[in-house]
Amino acid sequence: MITIREALEPDYEAIWPMIRDVFRAGETYAVDPRISKEAARSYWMGQAAKTFVAVTDAGIVGTYYIKTNQPGGGAHICNCGYVVDPRAQGQGVARQMCEHSQDAARALGYRAMQFNFVLASNAGAVGLWHRLGFETIGTIPDAFDHPRLGVVDAFVMHKRLVP
Amino acid sequence: MITIREALEPDYEAIWPMIRDVFRAGETYAVDPRISKEAARSYWMGQAAKTFVAVTDAGIVGTYYIKTNQPGGGAHICNCGYVVDPRAQGQGVARQMCEHSQDAARALGYRAMQFNFVLASNAGAVGLWHRLGFETIGTIPDAFDHPRLGVVDAFVMHKRLVP
Repeated sequence: MITIREALEPDYEAIWPMIRDVFRAGETYAVDPRISKEAARSYWMGQAAKTFVAVTDAGIVGTYYIKTNQPGGGAHICNCGYVVDPRAQGQGVARQMCEHSQDAARALGYRAMQFNFVLASNAGAVGLWHRLGFETIGTIPDAFDHPRLGVVDAFVMHKRLVP
Repeated sequence: MITIREALEPDYEAIWPMIRDVFRAGETYAVDPRISKEAARSYWMGQAAKTFVAVTDAGIVGTYYIKTNQPGGGAHICNCGYVVDPRAQGQGVARQMCEHSQDAARALGYRAMQFNFVLASNAGAVGLWHRLGFETIGTIPDAFDHPRLGVVDAFVMHKRLVP
């Protein structure tokens, strides 16, 4: 049973170890792997329209943010980032967070959701986003220097949230 | 005769009216049209690896920035933004700045240049970037709410700078 709720400031103590491990690995997010705890807080919670956590009996097992992807004339499209605790993988947390984020984004007035930088090597994410209705609208060649795989492409993915 | 040189802090007094008018119009950049002078300075000069100005006998007639498009594993691709004084349009200032920026980017170690948000309605820019070797690698549908034209698409454009 997964509950998703808005993140509160103290939740960052549980959020940080999850996003830290993902950022330090440097395999999925275009973030400096040496990012500090405070800079990561700003990235995950400071620029966001809203940040959420996914909670089970085991505690906080996932987190995501929604933010405006481009200001000004582009402000009707949002961007989200999701991280799942490795110990909770395979339980549908990412799927549930992405579905939740689409409803949350609509409630915030966004008309579409865009992922700017989905690594081609991140097959699990690419497949899940496709199954959830996102289209690949662009491919950035040699976009990311993956620590194990070398240079990989990144996809721009997009889904309309309203007709 | 156009000279392009690195921007110095005092140049911002000449840069600001140019970028202000472009941002206020809200027709080409995904920037809040009400952006303040100081926030615009941060956008144009604060986050940039380098900012340049194009100078003629008439003074500063154009400006551009180079910045890293994505940190971490994406940091080998740069992004640039260009603005030409309307009174200097048609003199090849944009073309010369874009060519200059490619050399400057190579000198900074970037391997490719990406424009994240070129409005389909900005036909002059789209055509120029194509002529200068950029490819459209993605199309964001209904990406931008244009004050006169309504909702328009945006292109993601890309050029490799090294073989």
